[in-house]
Amino acid sequence: MINETHDAGLRSWVASANTPGTDFPVQNLPFAVFRRRGSAEAWRGGVAIGDQVLDLAAAHATGAFAGEAAVAAAHASAATFNGLMALGPRYGSALRLALSRALREGAAQAGSLAACLVPQREAEYTVPARIGDYTDFYASVHHATNIGRLFRPDNPLMPNFKWIPIGYHGRVSSIGVSGQRFRRPKGQIMPPGESAPLFSACRRLDYELEVGIWVGQGNALGEPIPIDRVDEHVFGLCLLNDWSARDIQAWEYQPLGPFLAKNFATTISPWIVTLEALAPYRTAWSRPAEDPQPLAYLDGEGVRKHGAIDLQLEAWIESAKMRADGSGACRLSHTSLRHSYWTVGQMVAHHSVGGCNLQPGDLLGTGTQSGPSLDEAGALIELSAGGKNPVSLPNGENRTFLEDGDAVILRGWCERKGFARIGFGECRGEVLPASGD
Amino acid sequence: MINETHDAGLRSWVASANTPGTDFPVQNLPFAVFRRRGSAEAWRGGVAIGDQVLDLAAAHATGAFAGEAAVAAAHASAATFNGLMALGPRYGSALRLALSRALREGAAQAGSLAACLVPQREAEYTVPARIGDYTDFYASVHHATNIGRLFRPDNPLMPNFKWIPIGYHGRVSSIGVSGQRFRRPKGQIMPPGESAPLFSACRRLDYELEVGIWVGQGNALGEPIPIDRVDEHVFGLCLLNDWSARDIQAWEYQPLGPFLAKNFATTISPWIVTLEALAPYRTAWSRPAEDPQPLAYLDGEGVRKHGAIDLQLEAWIESAKMRADGSGACRLSHTSLRHSYWTVGQMVAHHSVGGCNLQPGDLLGTGTQSGPSLDEAGALIELSAGGKNPVSLPNGENRTFLEDGDAVILRGWCERKGFARIGFGECRGEVLPASGD
Repeated sequence: MINETHDAGLRSWVASANTPGTDFPVQNLPFAVFRRRGSAEAWRGGVAIGDQVLDLAAAHATGAFAGEAAVAAAHASAATFNGLMALGPRYGSALRLALSRALREGAAQAGSLAACLVPQREAEYTVPARIGDYTDFYASVHHATNIGRLFRPDNPLMPNFKWIPIGYHGRVSSIGVSGQRFRRPKGQIMPPGESAPLFSACRRLDYELEVGIWVGQGNALGEPIPIDRVDEHVFGLCLLNDWSARDIQAWEYQPLGPFLAKNFATTISPWIVTLEALAPYRTAWSRPAEDPQPLAYLDGEGVRKHGAIDLQLEAWIESAKMRADGSGACRLSHTSLRHSYWTVGQMVAHHSVGGCNLQPGDLLGTGTQSGPSLDEAGALIELSAGGKNPVSLPNGENRTFLEDGDAVILRGWCERKGFARIGFGECRGEVLPASGD
Repeated sequence: MINETHDAGLRSWVASANTPGTDFPVQNLPFAVFRRRGSAEAWRGGVAIGDQVLDLAAAHATGAFAGEAAVAAAHASAATFNGLMALGPRYGSALRLALSRALREGAAQAGSLAACLVPQREAEYTVPARIGDYTDFYASVHHATNIGRLFRPDNPLMPNFKWIPIGYHGRVSSIGVSGQRFRRPKGQIMPPGESAPLFSACRRLDYELEVGIWVGQGNALGEPIPIDRVDEHVFGLCLLNDWSARDIQAWEYQPLGPFLAKNFATTISPWIVTLEALAPYRTAWSRPAEDPQPLAYLDGEGVRKHGAIDLQLEAWIESAKMRADGSGACRLSHTSLRHSYWTVGQMVAHHSVGGCNLQPGDLLGTGTQSGPSLDEAGALIELSAGGKNPVSLPNGENRTFLEDGDAVILRGWCERKGFARIGFGECRGEVLPASGD
């Protein structure tokens, strides 16, 4: 899996890609769909390199790519990546190798490709694929335990949690890319002690720190994806904020799950970090010996050896006051995807095991990722113990749940000794007042 | 709402449309996307008339339509109806009026349009829109009570049921059109008394008799559809079978709802009966005075006066044995959509009230429609009391749940004194053995 594109010694002729701490060194090469901000240009694919976007349509037109890389670049020049995703990992890998070579110091293509760069500060992004279906999982045992404890202190985890990567279908139409601003939702809430629900603006609005999984090659209806081939079906990962209206959810979710509590907005980061770029940061997966071990369709040598991914995750908050006084965002928590009870591959295998067909451009969410300690939790409902313990912010504000004007920013990156640090950029969304407020 | 197209006295120059009992008299005019069976023709829109399909692309090319009807016909000539749906009811209504006039006895266009007819027995159909999102509701109080009684005999209905049109997001990719055949799903099941789940083919496979709702015009994110404008956002209805794996569902559904229990297949009828065609069969809606009355966003004069639709619904079963011995399908139950606790319009208003954006071509399901008496139930789990009382079939077979080779056929129609009888065609799906069996 590890190849020349992961070599930590590589440097790019795009100088900003060599700056320590950049999210986008030449070892990363994530994809997004972009155009110049505010322009009427066509949306097309780009690759992040330092503080620039390499325009893939323009680069392809220079003849920079050949063979399978050229086929992939042609698909990546479109307004959605569904075609690129459908090609499968061989083509994506060929494009990655060609991009790595063309963007390295001394590359012969440096001259022609320099003209294909657009500064990221001048770019805007959109949802990078036509998402056929969106599924959200619930894969963190720490999150499930923290949440379950609020409702069932003696028995926080459902009996199925350690057997099934629990998932449910989500709403595609309201998925937006970083920068999304949305109105605080209204809905029915049932205050404690009342006998009838109120119709009200949400009073317990929350974020959820998640990772998004972009499906690459699909599977046919009735033909499950075996656990040892899941990697061939994952195009890459992004950051995902599954905004949640906790009070609406508490009243509506029995017996069929969350609905209006989630479907008003979901925000994703524009950059897709490919599974190949993540190869150096994969790590062994196991679970406590006293826990049930996975059924055969969810287990295997690949799962055990490198099923987990050490993807560092952070959630930050920027209140209206912080924006106004220039103090800037502050971090709420930090965890890693490696703590997930279920791996990305297990989610893919489970999703398809009953015959459900996944399609290129489908999006899966991992569910809120919370670490083992409570200050590593990926949502305010956990950090504030269900709203009982307000979280103190460094500027003197505090939060139980989100207020109007709050922006939440998710960040993610991977680092490992002997390899480069690669990042995901940011996933930012902002809460606007409810309509009529 | 009622206009010249609903006149029971209208007859068509397509003689089969005048046959008593036909689903497709000239008062109906439902839309489907079709082509000649087994051909490589382009998929395009058609209208059912008697035992024929009027090819809308061909009819439009004859110049049969003018003004708004021609705009609608141009959109209806495409391989999906998303464009037609987005136009809104004014255009759809203009096309319906033009079709009604052109297909009536004595119409000047009879000569040119006769060449645009394709016999239905030579046609095949496909899913008529690119479905952006699929949502399934749970709107029948009789179904919810029957199901709830199996799990909670003393308290069958959840406290939210009479306040909220409960819904959840479903899977788009596995939706197929009538004729769909699918493998019995496999998954985790937890047999009673066991301490660990099995991985097994589903043992409690069921159908669900539902109505599908096609969204027409959408709404913008954050801008709910008011209850008094819901009709402008519904293009029409179809039949929908929400196949369900009850044993997989029982083990997986807490706390986030059904997932693999539903996402292996959903079958819809190809014909969309427009809301305008259904105008004569709308009827008053109310609920028992002792029940909570709807919150304001779900209530109004329109809901009370004609919120319900008297759409007769039937489920039939055709076993492999019935096919082999020629005895044919037999009816399992019969009910009407008018018994639904929540109306189509209430579902649309609720779906969008938190800001969720509906889009043209979205599909909603009403949830299983069961009537007040147990023999009017819309699923085997109800008819067989959770598998305890097998349902006897007239040929000596019996069923608790579906067996391999069983086909389930849904039928629907409306009739009212002084108006024509209009039908939905059929929605047929067949269970194949699990893979490896």
